[in-house]
Amino acid sequence: MIIDVHGHYTTAPRALEAWRNQQIAGIADPAAAPQRSDLRISDDEIRETIETNQLAQMRARRSDLTIFSPRASFMAHHIGDFAVSSAWAAICNELCFRVSRLFPDHFVPAAMLPQSPGVPPETCIPELETCVRDYGAVAINLNPDPSGGRWTSPPLTDRHWYPIYEKLVEHDIPAMVHVSTSVNPCFHTTGAHYINADTTAFMQLIQGDLFTDFPTLRFVIPHGGGAAPYHWGRYRGLAQELKKPPLKEHLLNNVFFDTCVYHQPGIDLLLRVVPIENILFASEMIGAVRGVDPDTGHNYDDTRRYVEASPQLTPAQRAQIYEGNARRVYPRLAAALEKKGK
Amino acid sequence: MIIDVHGHYTTAPRALEAWRNQQIAGIADPAAAPQRSDLRISDDEIRETIETNQLAQMRARRSDLTIFSPRASFMAHHIGDFAVSSAWAAICNELCFRVSRLFPDHFVPAAMLPQSPGVPPETCIPELETCVRDYGAVAINLNPDPSGGRWTSPPLTDRHWYPIYEKLVEHDIPAMVHVSTSVNPCFHTTGAHYINADTTAFMQLIQGDLFTDFPTLRFVIPHGGGAAPYHWGRYRGLAQELKKPPLKEHLLNNVFFDTCVYHQPGIDLLLRVVPIENILFASEMIGAVRGVDPDTGHNYDDTRRYVEASPQLTPAQRAQIYEGNARRVYPRLAAALEKKGK
Repeated sequence: MIIDVHGHYTTAPRALEAWRNQQIAGIADPAAAPQRSDLRISDDEIRETIETNQLAQMRARRSDLTIFSPRASFMAHHIGDFAVSSAWAAICNELCFRVSRLFPDHFVPAAMLPQSPGVPPETCIPELETCVRDYGAVAINLNPDPSGGRWTSPPLTDRHWYPIYEKLVEHDIPAMVHVSTSVNPCFHTTGAHYINADTTAFMQLIQGDLFTDFPTLRFVIPHGGGAAPYHWGRYRGLAQELKKPPLKEHLLNNVFFDTCVYHQPGIDLLLRVVPIENILFASEMIGAVRGVDPDTGHNYDDTRRYVEASPQLTPAQRAQIYEGNARRVYPRLAAALEKKGK
Repeated sequence: MIIDVHGHYTTAPRALEAWRNQQIAGIADPAAAPQRSDLRISDDEIRETIETNQLAQMRARRSDLTIFSPRASFMAHHIGDFAVSSAWAAICNELCFRVSRLFPDHFVPAAMLPQSPGVPPETCIPELETCVRDYGAVAINLNPDPSGGRWTSPPLTDRHWYPIYEKLVEHDIPAMVHVSTSVNPCFHTTGAHYINADTTAFMQLIQGDLFTDFPTLRFVIPHGGGAAPYHWGRYRGLAQELKKPPLKEHLLNNVFFDTCVYHQPGIDLLLRVVPIENILFASEMIGAVRGVDPDTGHNYDDTRRYVEASPQLTPAQRAQIYEGNARRVYPRLAAALEKKGK
């Protein structure tokens, strides 16, 4: 079985974006604000967007199941206030839930949170509870920078975030650390902000001692961990200078990397540097990089090819990356699969 | 000959830091502000700090020559206004010049600029001219974020920066893109801000067409190019989506990476992904990561060992990385060496 832990509903019906645009217009002009009930998307529309896109690709690439969350760049927590984020998150999460109901063998939801800059993260808990209890969400996406590239929130190790962590521990679900659109012109969203956020989060975790307070808390750092594996020596050395335990002991019981690295040498480095038990298969398909690599003739984000071609993996290790690690890191996914006899 | 293109005067005599602290105190209390002449550092003091530190390491590691600039984290362009940055840059640059005079076979200066947030970059030109004409500087360090982690300046491709680029082209010197201390608590200076800045700069260059306007302008992106080589597939794919030419054509006549990557797999990836003619030997010694790697028994930043151990290089390629590329990217260095018959 091949589980892709990182997929977003990037192909939602156009009506969703139209509703969002109306919602944004309503921030300046409340008379323009839409009702939630104004958004009408039929099951057939959802089916069509999934079958012709994500599911078609999953079939072509032979992955079985995707942990599926709302489009990351559209979370845009910087827009409006908590009420705006709250209505938007509720709609997006419900849509991913509907995808999971329409394709129960192929999609399991993960939730976005209604974060808003300057608003305490505990305000996100009701939506988190709805997604876990009613929608079967097996994870959340946590945005370390709801300001969208201004980085005005405290580091992830700050008590600011603890109410969320308490809920994650209670429900035994991991958080993928995932920013959204950058409004800072310095940072290209998928080329700089995403990767920087991964690197930043990893270094914040090195500096702190978060997992002393939350020994069972788990973070997935996407996009192959940003720059962390490439600079593993730097991070080992910095941890050492900060008098922290070795990274394996300090972080690797709690921190995992996905395989969203879009070329063979990158995946080879990841597999060489990071322990296999900390690597989770993912593609972020259909996502940041949609083209076909002229050098290989395959999609850049067809990460399964790189994992397959990597010379250093045994079949057992490959199975860990494809399935075993995901079951361990996402116990609610494991439970849901077991219930189905999978 | 082995040229290290990335060294900072991180070991300057204590008097320098004391003067800086007094200068900072003088921002709030002008009566406390020091005169430039209050700083007294003797040649013997400089000799001692270099001989027991950088030069001792260079001898141990058998590198010959270092392109030497003021301590990057101490540039701290966010502190005070242009006058503060200006006095500070002048002092720091003069010290590096004195190092180069005391050890002419081992150190060649590169200049920091008196950047200041919100101040037009052209204000830096007089200091740049002094450093090139009077001090023999062969490069500058350009800080893409003088705010120190708030990222309030425009991207490097913006016309904002053009007056600097015109001077670089005129003098035929490259810029190393190098940030300074982060005042943003989200970003650890050497673990996040440095690496993020490298990644950010590379993506800005992908988005723009800067080298159409400045075909001979050259940037060195330090710390192994941040995350760029690890995510080379992502960057190739994003360039393609942005309808830019292939990276090789779009950027690699003008953009170079150093070897400040502190473990073997990282260097191996860099050498595998980036054309050899775009890689310059460097260690940033004595710098960000000062410890000894317990796995190897050697300093993390002893990057020569990784380059030596890399199985994929021919002797000719190694010589390119150690020397040939540096002579090409830093023509004023090449000229100075030729003048000495080297």
